[in-house]
Amino acid sequence: MSQNLPIKALESVLNDVISIKLKDQRIFRGRLTRCDMYMNLTLADAEELENEEIRAKYGQLLLRGNNILWIQIPE
Amino acid sequence: MSQNLPIKALESVLNDVISIKLKDQRIFRGRLTRCDMYMNLTLADAEELENEEIRAKYGQLLLRGNNILWIQIPE
Amino acid sequence: MSQNLPIKALESVLNDVISIKLKDQRIFRGRLTRCDMYMNLTLADAEELENEEIRAKYGQLLLRGNNILWIQIPE
Amino acid sequence: MSQNLPIKALESVLNDVISIKLKDQRIFRGRLTRCDMYMNLTLADAEELENEEIRAKYGQLLLRGNNILWIQIPE
Amino acid sequence: MSQNLPIKALESVLNDVISIKLKDQRIFRGRLTRCDMYMNLTLADAEELENEEIRAKYGQLLLRGNNILWIQIPE
Amino acid sequence: MSQNLPIKALESVLNDVISIKLKDQRIFRGRLTRCDMYMNLTLADAEELENEEIRAKYGQLLLRGNNILWIQIPE
Amino acid sequence: MSQNLPIKALESVLNDVISIKLKDQRIFRGRLTRCDMYMNLTLADAEELENEEIRAKYGQLLLRGNNILWIQIPE
Repeated sequence: MSQNLPIKALESVLNDVISIKLKDQRIFRGRLTRCDMYMNLTLADAEELENEEIRAKYGQLLLRGNNILWIQIPE
Repeated sequence: MSQNLPIKALESVLNDVISIKLKDQRIFRGRLTRCDMYMNLTLADAEELENEEIRAKYGQLLLRGNNILWIQIPE
Repeated sequence: MSQNLPIKALESVLNDVISIKLKDQRIFRGRLTRCDMYMNLTLADAEELENEEIRAKYGQLLLRGNNILWIQIPE
Repeated sequence: MSQNLPIKALESVLNDVISIKLKDQRIFRGRLTRCDMYMNLTLADAEELENEEIRAKYGQLLLRGNNILWIQIPE
Repeated sequence: MSQNLPIKALESVLNDVISIKLKDQRIFRGRLTRCDMYMNLTLADAEELENEEIRAKYGQLLLRGNNILWIQIPE
Repeated sequence: MSQNLPIKALESVLNDVISIKLKDQRIFRGRLTRCDMYMNLTLADAEELENEEIRAKYGQLLLRGNNILWIQIPE
Repeated sequence: MSQNLPIKALESVLNDVISIKLKDQRIFRGRLTRCDMYMNLTLADAEELENEEIRAKYGQLLLRGNNILWIQIPE
């Protein structure tokens, strides 16, 4: 069943652009460069979004998995 | 007893449409494509709902299990 | 002592109707069809209640144990 | 030291009436019928109290230990 | 280093009066009768305080360690 | 790498005065007398501060690590 | 895969200046001097920021990993 684990969907889009919503309702978008089994991950060219507009740019950002609500993954 | 575990009810509806409520009171609906024992899961054709109307469409979405309140599972 | 564990009280009412209060103060009622040691459980004919009136019907519902405040168990 | 564990104080009052305060500030009272090391417990003749008056009666109630603030134990 | 563990400071005042603040900002005072490594503990002659005045008396009280902010320990 | 662990920075200032901010936004100051790997710690001559003024004095205080936001450590 | 773990991105910038946002929405900036696998970390020359202005200076600061939302890492 390990082929079918949700985390594999994340690993399969390394280097693609993903969006992440955190528990504090903030949304981040960037290119996925690293991830682990706790959903800790790093983004390159990370942006914070508000109402679909860019609110801040961070370059490389490390997000802590335990605060993630969801991750939008390109198909 | 492992046949009777709650997580088995989720695994038995892979590829079916489910609805999920998160701790922040948001409701998501989509086709279940992956799940694990922590209730982490991926949806295809994921939608966010508000008062039973579609508020946003996300394509493929990875939801983190520890923020889930409940999952509505087709019978 | 394992005979006397609280979770055994839940297992002993499989197929009976129970009520559950979640941390977000919502109350659910339905027929218990599955449960595990984390109090994850599935209900058949699940209803959400508000002031003892039915607010929504969900069919089969999977509730995550870590959000449960209490479970009312028939004697 | 295991004789002196706090959980032993709870086990020693099985069948006695205890009061419990949950994190959501609700107070419950009932006869302790089961408990485990996580402070999960079941009450018989469970009542919910507000300002020391009975607000609701539940019969048998299973309380999840991780939401408990304190338990008043008869001496 | 085990001599120097913070929990040892608590164990060393068994039978002395301590004060405890919980996450919900309530303060309790009583004679420490039991404790474990999770800071679960029991108090005898437990009182709840508000603005340094007694608000309620509970007799024997079991406090769950994971809700404790701090414990004032006599020197 | 164990030489470089963050907790070692705390152990290296035993008997020095440190400041601690808790999740409830309160700030405490005192002389560090004990600590463990969970950041549980005891302070001697503990004070609670508000806007850099002393609000309360506690003598010996045990702080639970899981509620700590940060610790200011003398260099 | 261990080369690609998110925590490695943090370890690779030891002695560089990073910014950290905590769950209570506060932002800290300083030179990373230590970190561990839980994202506990120490900063030298730590500053607290508000609207990109310095609000407080702390010298050496130990931040607890479980309260971290994100870490901005120089590329």
